Amino acid sequence: MDYSKRSIKKVLSHLKEGKITQASAFKRLEHFPFHDMGFAKIDFHRAVRKGFPAVIFAPGKRNSEVAEISKKIVASGNTLLITKATPALYEYLSKIIPRVRFEEPARMIYYRGRRAAKKRNPVLVITAGTSDIPIAEEAALTLEILGNRAQKLYDVGVAGIHRLVDKMDLIKKAKVVIVVAGMEGALASIVGGLTPSPVIAVPTSVGYGASFGGLSSLLTMLNSCSPGVCVMNIDNGFGAGYFASLINK
Amino acid sequence: MDYSKRSIKKVLSHLKEGKITQASAFKRLEHFPFHDMGFAKIDFHRAVRKGFPAVIFAPGKRNSEVAEISKKIVASGNTLLITKATPALYEYLSKIIPRVRFEEPARMIYYRGRRAAKKRNPVLVITAGTSDIPIAEEAALTLEILGNRAQKLYDVGVAGIHRLVDKMDLIKKAKVVIVVAGMEGALASIVGGLTPSPVIAVPTSVGYGASFGGLSSLLTMLNSCSPGVCVMNIDNGFGAGYFASLINK
Amino acid sequence: MDYSKRSIKKVLSHLKEGKITQASAFKRLEHFPFHDMGFAKIDFHRAVRKGFPAVIFAPGKRNSEVAEISKKIVASGNTLLITKATPALYEYLSKIIPRVRFEEPARMIYYRGRRAAKKRNPVLVITAGTSDIPIAEEAALTLEILGNRAQKLYDVGVAGIHRLVDKMDLIKKAKVVIVVAGMEGALASIVGGLTPSPVIAVPTSVGYGASFGGLSSLLTMLNSCSPGVCVMNIDNGFGAGYFASLINK
Amino acid sequence: MDYSKRSIKKVLSHLKEGKITQASAFKRLEHFPFHDMGFAKIDFHRAVRKGFPAVIFAPGKRNSEVAEISKKIVASGNTLLITKATPALYEYLSKIIPRVRFEEPARMIYYRGRRAAKKRNPVLVITAGTSDIPIAEEAALTLEILGNRAQKLYDVGVAGIHRLVDKMDLIKKAKVVIVVAGMEGALASIVGGLTPSPVIAVPTSVGYGASFGGLSSLLTMLNSCSPGVCVMNIDNGFGAGYFASLINK
Amino acid sequence: MDYSKRSIKKVLSHLKEGKITQASAFKRLEHFPFHDMGFAKIDFHRAVRKGFPAVIFAPGKRNSEVAEISKKIVASGNTLLITKATPALYEYLSKIIPRVRFEEPARMIYYRGRRAAKKRNPVLVITAGTSDIPIAEEAALTLEILGNRAQKLYDVGVAGIHRLVDKMDLIKKAKVVIVVAGMEGALASIVGGLTPSPVIAVPTSVGYGASFGGLSSLLTMLNSCSPGVCVMNIDNGFGAGYFASLINK
Amino acid sequence: MDYSKRSIKKVLSHLKEGKITQASAFKRLEHFPFHDMGFAKIDFHRAVRKGFPAVIFAPGKRNSEVAEISKKIVASGNTLLITKATPALYEYLSKIIPRVRFEEPARMIYYRGRRAAKKRNPVLVITAGTSDIPIAEEAALTLEILGNRAQKLYDVGVAGIHRLVDKMDLIKKAKVVIVVAGMEGALASIVGGLTPSPVIAVPTSVGYGASFGGLSSLLTMLNSCSPGVCVMNIDNGFGAGYFASLINK
Amino acid sequence: MDYSKRSIKKVLSHLKEGKITQASAFKRLEHFPFHDMGFAKIDFHRAVRKGFPAVIFAPGKRNSEVAEISKKIVASGNTLLITKATPALYEYLSKIIPRVRFEEPARMIYYRGRRAAKKRNPVLVITAGTSDIPIAEEAALTLEILGNRAQKLYDVGVAGIHRLVDKMDLIKKAKVVIVVAGMEGALASIVGGLTPSPVIAVPTSVGYGASFGGLSSLLTMLNSCSPGVCVMNIDNGFGAGYFASLINK
Amino acid sequence: MDYSKRSIKKVLSHLKEGKITQASAFKRLEHFPFHDMGFAKIDFHRAVRKGFPAVIFAPGKRNSEVAEISKKIVASGNTLLITKATPALYEYLSKIIPRVRFEEPARMIYYRGRRAAKKRNPVLVITAGTSDIPIAEEAALTLEILGNRAQKLYDVGVAGIHRLVDKMDLIKKAKVVIVVAGMEGALASIVGGLTPSPVIAVPTSVGYGASFGGLSSLLTMLNSCSPGVCVMNIDNGFGAGYFASLINK
Repeated sequence: MDYSKRSIKKVLSHLKEGKITQASAFKRLEHFPFHDMGFAKIDFHRAVRKGFPAVIFAPGKRNSEVAEISKKIVASGNTLLITKATPALYEYLSKIIPRVRFEEPARMIYYRGRRAAKKRNPVLVITAGTSDIPIAEEAALTLEILGNRAQKLYDVGVAGIHRLVDKMDLIKKAKVVIVVAGMEGALASIVGGLTPSPVIAVPTSVGYGASFGGLSSLLTMLNSCSPGVCVMNIDNGFGAGYFASLINK
Repeated sequence: MDYSKRSIKKVLSHLKEGKITQASAFKRLEHFPFHDMGFAKIDFHRAVRKGFPAVIFAPGKRNSEVAEISKKIVASGNTLLITKATPALYEYLSKIIPRVRFEEPARMIYYRGRRAAKKRNPVLVITAGTSDIPIAEEAALTLEILGNRAQKLYDVGVAGIHRLVDKMDLIKKAKVVIVVAGMEGALASIVGGLTPSPVIAVPTSVGYGASFGGLSSLLTMLNSCSPGVCVMNIDNGFGAGYFASLINK
Repeated sequence: MDYSKRSIKKVLSHLKEGKITQASAFKRLEHFPFHDMGFAKIDFHRAVRKGFPAVIFAPGKRNSEVAEISKKIVASGNTLLITKATPALYEYLSKIIPRVRFEEPARMIYYRGRRAAKKRNPVLVITAGTSDIPIAEEAALTLEILGNRAQKLYDVGVAGIHRLVDKMDLIKKAKVVIVVAGMEGALASIVGGLTPSPVIAVPTSVGYGASFGGLSSLLTMLNSCSPGVCVMNIDNGFGAGYFASLINK
Repeated sequence: MDYSKRSIKKVLSHLKEGKITQASAFKRLEHFPFHDMGFAKIDFHRAVRKGFPAVIFAPGKRNSEVAEISKKIVASGNTLLITKATPALYEYLSKIIPRVRFEEPARMIYYRGRRAAKKRNPVLVITAGTSDIPIAEEAALTLEILGNRAQKLYDVGVAGIHRLVDKMDLIKKAKVVIVVAGMEGALASIVGGLTPSPVIAVPTSVGYGASFGGLSSLLTMLNSCSPGVCVMNIDNGFGAGYFASLINK
Repeated sequence: MDYSKRSIKKVLSHLKEGKITQASAFKRLEHFPFHDMGFAKIDFHRAVRKGFPAVIFAPGKRNSEVAEISKKIVASGNTLLITKATPALYEYLSKIIPRVRFEEPARMIYYRGRRAAKKRNPVLVITAGTSDIPIAEEAALTLEILGNRAQKLYDVGVAGIHRLVDKMDLIKKAKVVIVVAGMEGALASIVGGLTPSPVIAVPTSVGYGASFGGLSSLLTMLNSCSPGVCVMNIDNGFGAGYFASLINK
Repeated sequence: MDYSKRSIKKVLSHLKEGKITQASAFKRLEHFPFHDMGFAKIDFHRAVRKGFPAVIFAPGKRNSEVAEISKKIVASGNTLLITKATPALYEYLSKIIPRVRFEEPARMIYYRGRRAAKKRNPVLVITAGTSDIPIAEEAALTLEILGNRAQKLYDVGVAGIHRLVDKMDLIKKAKVVIVVAGMEGALASIVGGLTPSPVIAVPTSVGYGASFGGLSSLLTMLNSCSPGVCVMNIDNGFGAGYFASLINK
Repeated sequence: MDYSKRSIKKVLSHLKEGKITQASAFKRLEHFPFHDMGFAKIDFHRAVRKGFPAVIFAPGKRNSEVAEISKKIVASGNTLLITKATPALYEYLSKIIPRVRFEEPARMIYYRGRRAAKKRNPVLVITAGTSDIPIAEEAALTLEILGNRAQKLYDVGVAGIHRLVDKMDLIKKAKVVIVVAGMEGALASIVGGLTPSPVIAVPTSVGYGASFGGLSSLLTMLNSCSPGVCVMNIDNGFGAGYFASLINK
Repeated sequence: MDYSKRSIKKVLSHLKEGKITQASAFKRLEHFPFHDMGFAKIDFHRAVRKGFPAVIFAPGKRNSEVAEISKKIVASGNTLLITKATPALYEYLSKIIPRVRFEEPARMIYYRGRRAAKKRNPVLVITAGTSDIPIAEEAALTLEILGNRAQKLYDVGVAGIHRLVDKMDLIKKAKVVIVVAGMEGALASIVGGLTPSPVIAVPTSVGYGASFGGLSSLLTMLNSCSPGVCVMNIDNGFGAGYFASLINK
């Protein structure tokens, strides 16, 4: 990424070595630490601080606002990532930033800046059911953009635990595991009991009645009796992918 | 059903007796214990283990995904059952699997595989009000597909308990009773106090205001002071029908 | 009661007729409309406005505060009524106001001022279980102090509805009914369906687990499908007795 | 109303006196105590027992079901009352039962059977705001159909309490009061403190944010520190009108 | 049990055959259908109707009330069962009814009347953890009193699923299974996925923080994606044992 | 404003001085203290009592009702303010009261009466994210109409706290601060810890999953460990602007 | 206060003017901006930044920890303030810091450092009932320590609104009002409708049943239809006093 | 640890090499994979699978049960760890297993088996307040037992963010951070915005009123707008320490 620590150092050493003018250096750094657009302040510094620039949460923003922010991020060479996006937003944006892509199952719009170096170990993304896949895809796409490979193991919920047992080797070998599950959310505890690796649990709002919009799986995961399980917000696939990438070394 | 214990034994004994080739036996069993479609793993083994194959919960799945899973189940000779289905999904599916049927009041799409042996005792399905009927129909259709007869006693809620008293004989004779009720959900306790048979209570989301999407009837049923009452998730007519069939002998 | 409209008119006409001095009239009326004690303002006017003086809710008040308020009320000739009282408070108070009485099942301390005229119709107080009796007793004692007779029908919950049926005549004849029930609280709907009279439902905190401190019976009663049922706060026996007395004519 | 105790006695005495034939008497009484339509059991007996026939709660019922039930009720000479109705339902019904009327603000469809005798005292219906009016209208129309006059006092919420004070006489004279309020629901306590008459409080779902669909006003009303206040379900204008009519003598 | 249908018929036929006097028959039947003690109405009829007499829920009842009810039940020859009992209550009762026993882990006081006929199949009672044992013992003792054998499989929660796998044969052979689990409650779904038999899930209040007194395991179990699972109230071991006995044939 | 204390005094002194007739004075004051429109009672007195006339909360009111109320307010010379308005309502109103304006981001319709005197100090309005801007704009517009200048500092949430630090001077100098934040709502505590001025916290419903419609940020703000923070209802930008104006001197 | 901006400037100017040695200046300032005690970091800087040093929230802290923190604060010359304190903590502390005082009704331990300059306007503290007094006293003591006079108006809840009306002048003259109320919490809206001054509403946990530990009054206050009302956490008397002092000029 | 993969391999190779007898090998491995004590099944296999044996959650277990389990774990050479322990349990245990230690602030009883190899990087444990320390100590002790060094940074909550800023270097250098915070829980988001390392957030039940037992900080942390934050159950210090150790490499 453009604004990684390395790239800032490069700008500075290039300046020192006379490779670029001060004006040019200034232009590269002027938006540091953030770009003030009035209605939004893009946190380019986050690329330095957190290894990733600001991600755009689409709901509640106007199309024009998203477009303005997106243009600045793309122009800076950073990777653009928009979560919980709609096809309508994509249609709007693709006219303004033609190269953006839309991954519909993941409900994400993105544009890759400089690619991150590939990490060695894949991250395993598991879902309990087929309806949980959109959130899993959000995690998987985030993982890939951050330089990880995502292994997918979908629809292995606890109602037919032999489907899980069949894939035991995959689970045991994974260095980081993301478990995406709605309804009763029990899968996170099971996987947490099977693997010595950290498990990132993502409750989903899949279900009806007493699932109360994901509350049931959220509480299940928080109360997991398996140590080694941590929990993200309901439907927060991006957060799980990001966290998994942080601990995947 | 095709994948009942009996049918697996038959395949194996036919192989032993030379009635079928090893290749043919393999073909019959290759999807055992489940069929991996990537985005879904159909649990054919459940027909052996639980006496019924995987049921498809429609919400949150794409039409194409439902269709892919459905085709495999129908091709295997098993009974297909899709819950919380919409007319739109039926329209889509009926073009791909022409013989599927849609029971609109029950919101279920199904295709009968080999019929289950009929059980002797009917299961009594009671509703408190007319608005609870869709969930009761979901239970009743599940019961019938699993080989039970469903006796229906609708709209006998506690506001006019003489309607219930009038049908006392029916209730007292039933070996298994399903009670479907929204709003205050009191009917389950009443019926539980009248019959020596097990009562399966299904709260519904019928109501408004402080019914909080079915929470009121759920809590009522969980706190029933009549012993012999167990509770399903809000609006889970399928689960009630399935459980009733399990204990109807 | 001393501060009824009648008694105020009497003071004024006595003054007019010269039967009492102005000083004496002033002394009788000086606390009108309320007596300001700094930490409490006793609403004597309520005896005029609502037919009953202020009732003392004991929890959260110091013994000395309750005693000071009580002394003023007793001195004014009004009826003293303290709800949710403990034996310890009674012991403290009985040393200061020797004639106060403690009705332990109802958890009420009281001292009768001038007695109210007896009303003709009794009010029927029904409980679902034996554990609901304290709240029913709180309602019954309130009723009696306000000049009503309280008929008690305890432990007729819906788990054995024939116990209720056996008393049907009693229920059908009652002009006002109070139903006190915890756990699933279904009794209010049943009674509401049987009688043409108004039913005042009091949920209680009796129960455990998913009764959530009375929430289950509260929601049940609010969602009653029988018209003619209104609801009081959880464990509010006093409120039910008071409301029943208001509508008992 | 046709099925009042009086009308049944009249049929029987007419039969005894030879004024009608046995066949005619039978025809009048054959649906007693309820009419079983399979999907619905109309509780005509309620007209005897409760002074009013079954009311139809529209949501969750099919138009055709509502029409079938409505036709039977109208044919019996009873008053038809449908709550939470939509204009679409009215359009459907009015083609089948031309004389039904739709009171849009109250969201009620009705057809008057024999009129009830007018009661002497009016019932006062108060709202806190203008947005609470539909629920108040539901109460008022119910009151009128049951033979009461409804006095309306709208938009006198506690933010401008002098609007209430201005109408104090009206409040003090009312024998029964219904208070309809959303948001913070404080009006019920204020009115309860001003009048010696019973107050029926109806929380509404008016509000946003932490009103949580009417929970805030519901809890406020249940915790009212004014005695003489009872509570109905959120948005249950019909229930309030019905209860008020019961106690309006 | 004394008041089974059989025993009533016996009394009547003995009377008919002149084996007992009318006075004696009357004495045997006089408490039929219930015994009215004013504060409690013992439902002896339930022994006929439900196969078991009234069970006493101890909390909220005075020791003297429990003793009075208990004496009547023991005198009638029925089995006495008191749930959620304390050692203090036992100490009190054992002085009055010397032969009562206290099963401390199950928190139950009981006195066996005529023993029920033993049923053939054992019921399997499983707990997730050691802290869930008291509720499991409540279920197990209920089962035994009702004529069932209870097989116990404790501390096999999902954090170490191989402990469960080790006992797979036991689970697969069981005709009825009770699963008792607090915290995340996932065990019910796992067991439900492994066995073709009905599973009765009992959430417990074991846990802390976001278990919210058992809410987490309750929601988990209600949302179970395994069909064949029904749910009891939090900590309701008695209810699970009773229901299991009903369906254990 | 027309109905300020000053303007009433002016009417009275003009009358006294013979500048206007009694009829004219009466006409100016006749709607005092409120104008009764039956379905709404406009609280003109509030302009005197609270410094601002009644504000119209649009949801739940019919367009015609809003128009009637608006016409009266505009005719009185007061400032009209309608919150949570839709473009459709604006379209309707602008045909009736042509000069009304619609501030779409703030979702407010307004018409300025006599302008309030400008206050010296600006009020600082801060948002955590871009999606919180509509509520902030509602606060800002309210502030401006009430005579305050609103300084806006948007999108400075805690995920990139250096954006906040960069604007520290602005925060430290502000005499009153409004903080608008959804999701985790932490910004209010941070700002509360940085400034000696009062902070008015407005939780928003921005977020998903466990934000539960703004509950998460509401609870965060109520539990703020920074003293000097008070809280408004979720999404109540108007209330925050009004309160800030009250304390901005 | 010792660490006010003024006192820091004084230290620095004394140093400059040679009145104190550098060592002495250092000793006065060394704990600036906070004193690190390992388990606690006393925020002396807050005296500069917020006008008040850190307040100690007693629950969850060991007596020894509170004592250590208190000694440092007292030694610095600042005012010590401990909230939600128990008599036991006071007994412990008073042996270590003899001059600390305990205000039992307010549950606060304090020791006055240099006194703040008295402010001109009093702050009015109102309670709905007598049980709300402890929280009001917490607010009042905080106000006094911060240099305000607190006027108290206790027990004027909405059940007897004439008690409030009687004190109308007091309310209308107050420049800042704190309203403390449990149960239904309606008093805040009433007062908010009567005064043009800002109202700080403090819900209390006084009540029972559906007050749910103060939730009812919290929601009431958040949904207040009177503008000019802001809300503090349940039982947060200190916060209300602090906020009122901030806006009392 | 004794049952690490390494130690099992050692037993097997020692057997192969004739260093130990088969009987000796059997004795070492016989409890593999778990030791069945009837009421508890110690999961020694977890040492192999998860790198740590079963941890004992004390609440709800009898002292004798805890002692039995503890003796087996200590005898096996594993590390014993008991969470949420009381001084009374320690007193009981220390008589049976004299060498156990009690860390009172962390509420943990433990006995170290073979020590884990020390890890290079310390884990930073931060608390918002002093009252959060017990949970932080639980995390820190868990970390140390698992071979990590724990750096502690206590009482740096957001009310005085400069305390945090002062320690910025410490935060930025940490490879893994645990943030423990009650009340509003905002600290996790702040720290998450400052560090590129993973942050494990632990909400605590510290607070009162609308903290609802830790719900407020739990929701805050789940809704964190800083990516890189995952959440544990309320008060789950052990889980945070365990998870941090897993990702600390």
